[in-house]
Amino acid sequence: MGKVTCDIGISVDGFVAGPNQRLDEPLGDGAERLHRWMFEQPEANAEAIEKITAAGAFIMGRNMFASGRGDWDLDWTGWWGDEPPYHAPVFVLTHYERAPVPMKAPSEARPLNGGGRGLEDGGTTFNFVTDGIESAMARAQEAAGDADVAVAGGAQTVNQYLAAGLMDELRLHVAPIVLGAGERLFEDVGDLALEQVAVSHTDLVTHVTYRVAS
Amino acid sequence: MGKVTCDIGISVDGFVAGPNQRLDEPLGDGAERLHRWMFEQPEANAEAIEKITAAGAFIMGRNMFASGRGDWDLDWTGWWGDEPPYHAPVFVLTHYERAPVPMKAPSEARPLNGGGRGLEDGGTTFNFVTDGIESAMARAQEAAGDADVAVAGGAQTVNQYLAAGLMDELRLHVAPIVLGAGERLFEDVGDLALEQVAVSHTDLVTHVTYRVAS
Repeated sequence: MGKVTCDIGISVDGFVAGPNQRLDEPLGDGAERLHRWMFEQPEANAEAIEKITAAGAFIMGRNMFASGRGDWDLDWTGWWGDEPPYHAPVFVLTHYERAPVPMKAPSEARPLNGGGRGLEDGGTTFNFVTDGIESAMARAQEAAGDADVAVAGGAQTVNQYLAAGLMDELRLHVAPIVLGAGERLFEDVGDLALEQVAVSHTDLVTHVTYRVAS
Repeated sequence: MGKVTCDIGISVDGFVAGPNQRLDEPLGDGAERLHRWMFEQPEANAEAIEKITAAGAFIMGRNMFASGRGDWDLDWTGWWGDEPPYHAPVFVLTHYERAPVPMKAPSEARPLNGGGRGLEDGGTTFNFVTDGIESAMARAQEAAGDADVAVAGGAQTVNQYLAAGLMDELRLHVAPIVLGAGERLFEDVGDLALEQVAVSHTDLVTHVTYRVAS
């Protein structure tokens, strides 16, 4: 079995999403600046970017999958268009039953932000899990086999897995911005024992990897 | 005129002091772990430690000088004993008038945490400023001459200087701990434009230097 990991962009004041999340600004006000390093410096940050999509399965919260959609919308297939960057099964935490949504395989090599993967990696399927985070983790680990399971976000979902002691590695990507409000990482996670295991940086980000032993 | 700088230890969840600050635990519960890198790895962190006490004048809040003392106590001369690590004038923000308190020069070389300075650097004087942060800054800059002025803490004082646009350089020392509660840096500081200018680390800390252009 692989590790349970989380890559998450965070401001210096601890926010992973800004205030006023909505349909046309799903990360909230100002939060697109969290990811400048990814879009403006893909080569210098290639190693970090590659790791973000390397997992064998992904878990995300309902809010990350469908932030601002209000009621459940069966036509909605996420923010990522026809070819999501997740080339492995995705498990979405939700309270609404829904049949799995297979997304087609990429029609051509479409690397994510210059790192990433192409045609040979295939598509993904969005699976909807209504019976809690442990169940989602069990299903994701079964799907991932020996590969890692990545908790993709958002903040509440990551915090739930941290609080439950189900996270092995947290990779923070700290952007030099102050958001002032929004969603905080580490809220109500209880006591966490962290071990800082790797640090790297460009001028737009500091990458810090923590091993979690809660 | 030198820069206005701030060195501050911070947890991964953004706290620079823990909850329940009191006389026998002035940094609050658990917060002594913010500074393990300083005490356990003084040589590996020598460059960062040296910068902390290199300023030509220091400013600190009343809470940092006398946290938990309740009413003003004229016998109190800070937490640092007869030979504070500040070998330059210190300006304490307070609402209480008080005559300056000169501290004697070190009687022998007493390096701070293995970095630091000795006999030749002389003592310090605690000056008490009752007419606001701008006044304290003017007095500190006059005292410092061409050297930097360091805002030593605590969180409220640093946040006030950030909000007022009076900070040039913020040096965060991020410890791999979660405090969960306490005093936050960056609270109510408004819009800050940060430029990440340096990163270094040991396994107990990540040092990140930001230039502040507010």
